[in-house]
Amino acid sequence: MSARAGIVVTGTEVLTGRVLDRNGGFVSERLRELGIEHEHTLVVGDRPADMRDALGFLASRGVDLIVTSGGLGPTADDLTAEVIGAFQGREMVLDEPTEARIAEILAPMKERWPQLDMDAIREANRKQAVVPRGATILPPVGTAPGLVVPPADGRDGPTIVVLPGPPRELQPMWATAARTDAFRAATAGAHVIRQEMLRLFGIPESEIAATLRAGADDGLALDRLEITTCLRGGEIEIVTRFAPEDAGLYDDFVELIRARHADTLFSDDGTSVDEQVARLLGKSGRTVAVAESCTGGLVGGRLTQLAGSSSYFPGGLIVYSNEAKSSLAGVDPALIERVGAVSQEVAEALADGARAALGADLGLGVTGIAGPEGGTAEKPVGTVWFSVRDGAGHSLTRRVHLPGGRFDVRDRSTAVALHLLRRLLLGDND
Amino acid sequence: MSARAGIVVTGTEVLTGRVLDRNGGFVSERLRELGIEHEHTLVVGDRPADMRDALGFLASRGVDLIVTSGGLGPTADDLTAEVIGAFQGREMVLDEPTEARIAEILAPMKERWPQLDMDAIREANRKQAVVPRGATILPPVGTAPGLVVPPADGRDGPTIVVLPGPPRELQPMWATAARTDAFRAATAGAHVIRQEMLRLFGIPESEIAATLRAGADDGLALDRLEITTCLRGGEIEIVTRFAPEDAGLYDDFVELIRARHADTLFSDDGTSVDEQVARLLGKSGRTVAVAESCTGGLVGGRLTQLAGSSSYFPGGLIVYSNEAKSSLAGVDPALIERVGAVSQEVAEALADGARAALGADLGLGVTGIAGPEGGTAEKPVGTVWFSVRDGAGHSLTRRVHLPGGRFDVRDRSTAVALHLLRRLLLGDND
Repeated sequence: MSARAGIVVTGTEVLTGRVLDRNGGFVSERLRELGIEHEHTLVVGDRPADMRDALGFLASRGVDLIVTSGGLGPTADDLTAEVIGAFQGREMVLDEPTEARIAEILAPMKERWPQLDMDAIREANRKQAVVPRGATILPPVGTAPGLVVPPADGRDGPTIVVLPGPPRELQPMWATAARTDAFRAATAGAHVIRQEMLRLFGIPESEIAATLRAGADDGLALDRLEITTCLRGGEIEIVTRFAPEDAGLYDDFVELIRARHADTLFSDDGTSVDEQVARLLGKSGRTVAVAESCTGGLVGGRLTQLAGSSSYFPGGLIVYSNEAKSSLAGVDPALIERVGAVSQEVAEALADGARAALGADLGLGVTGIAGPEGGTAEKPVGTVWFSVRDGAGHSLTRRVHLPGGRFDVRDRSTAVALHLLRRLLLGDND
Repeated sequence: MSARAGIVVTGTEVLTGRVLDRNGGFVSERLRELGIEHEHTLVVGDRPADMRDALGFLASRGVDLIVTSGGLGPTADDLTAEVIGAFQGREMVLDEPTEARIAEILAPMKERWPQLDMDAIREANRKQAVVPRGATILPPVGTAPGLVVPPADGRDGPTIVVLPGPPRELQPMWATAARTDAFRAATAGAHVIRQEMLRLFGIPESEIAATLRAGADDGLALDRLEITTCLRGGEIEIVTRFAPEDAGLYDDFVELIRARHADTLFSDDGTSVDEQVARLLGKSGRTVAVAESCTGGLVGGRLTQLAGSSSYFPGGLIVYSNEAKSSLAGVDPALIERVGAVSQEVAEALADGARAALGADLGLGVTGIAGPEGGTAEKPVGTVWFSVRDGAGHSLTRRVHLPGGRFDVRDRSTAVALHLLRRLLLGDND
């Protein structure tokens, strides 16, 4: 027994890359948690024929379930419900309770935008209450109801779960969808697959390839694990999927990685460096402040990403100009003149300045050349200095040369900053 | 004559959502610019059978070109070249010049990570030089070469362009691929489709639906334009694709939108609010500083996203704690005590404080409740105050209630901040 599913993400804005898809991955992970295999995600624009082709491909692969996202809005390019109804052989009908519910939801818009023509709005939204007869209707989170649509009586094929495009509507609605009888009936054959993740920082991906070969040479049956590695924001993630009975083999694999990469393996339980830093700061009761140049606030943005960050992050200084480095973080202008803004000395002075200005226990300084202009032979684009310091003489300062364009250098810099902070919190010291 | 293409994005990390795909959209846009139609993007994990299925689906749709991304790395799960070789009926052979080129590229790693076993690394990377016989080899940007692989002689089917997964490798390599004879031969039937974008801020999507119906009622042949709308970061994007001969009709459509939505239409030439703010600041020679609470640095991060931002952004203050609001931005602690940190008065005081601390012409203050904790009946999660002020009495201050979770509220806040700044720069004033 098994259960298999496919995903269809709709929307020309996703197909053409104006919006990055967050739904395919979310649904994929939820399917995995339920033990439902997932092999293909198809992205299609707002064209009925392309959507039908995508559904047909997945049905031809014999999946039990198809999950779609998007195309449930009020505009004419939102076609999903109608296409799915036809695909499943079900007539479209107006569902009056749903129409009434949408009207209720829209009422407060009148208050927010008093100049709106509410009749026109209601007409646009009535369309969202027209659904395939016999579908299970999932209550709207925004204004669009979701659907679970089995094939019409007497027909074979997958059951289709129809969800709205905005992630904040799709995610809560998923939980409702997965509890419906129609969903459970379609996925009754599911069996659980475990997934675990290791994270490493500061080594190239090819080293992992060498380790995997060494493990296989030593007789580990690694082909029974589905191991994938990927580079992400400067870290290497090793994700392994395996049947529950192979848990012992997975433990051996983790020991192999730990033995060969102890210095770079920083997470074996799925936690991110952000979560580890938050936990280390929380446990020690210490606070950290930042002074950022080339990252322009992104390190502060990242440190405040998690709820509860106010307990360890009082704030920081964005010191993009040299004047700001001096006036806000107290860096001696003569020092900048002598060694340059992108230097060990200025990174350390920024760390001390952040600490002093915010009254924090730790200070973190970042200064570098994000490009595309400003690089020199000695300090090419991508050169970034990082420093983390407390007031008791503990300090870690590093120069890193990051690859890629302006976006990559700035994004990668936030990762290096977090990792340096983590290491200082764990007791490392220059 | 026409030319059609499909995209296959590979990588379990993308299929399962750990990494958001940026390649599908990038390639889609480049195809469009070349006049090549694109209907489907398939996302598959690192499994040969799934990749073959995806290629087979696109070939069965009759596409002339398939573009793949990912799976060219040194680890064993990187299988793309081999799968494509087999799919096209071409034997895999070691290309010695490519092997030598990769060795050259890897040499400096020895310096960066002196403890590496270079023999193991070279072995891992030799794999990347094994390519389908007769393929056009695209020089590596990272360590992986790309490929343009036509079907073997005497076979029908699409030509396949094989590109690496990291966007900073894929993007420059695309240009090389598109110039090859094999690519041009496969896409000789291309004809150009125009695409234009309108951006609006501060109205619901259903208003656009009403406008489109009104236009059709007035006799505009809107069905000859492919119009799609999407919500993105609080903005509505209306993207229209049309044949060059329908340019006049598109102009009429823009006039329709302008007539009904003059106050919210802010871009008709594809420019983002970020680019408009940068241009307005650059033209006026003015500078802006920020003081951010709930966004924790993200507004500064966004204002420094574009190269050249140092000419108008000296820096800012991240004032996450109330103490920092007072000590850095000079907000009177008694004021915070009296009206609360999330209030009109504090937002204005932050704007003034940022301006003063950085010596900037304009100050931008942001203070709100990103959640999930901290909301009250009067100030629920999502309540954010924004203020932009110069030193000459010009000021715009707004309270907004943003939907969604912590991530959404913070992300959306950066958009509101940029739009408020844009309006002040255009001369709006409370």
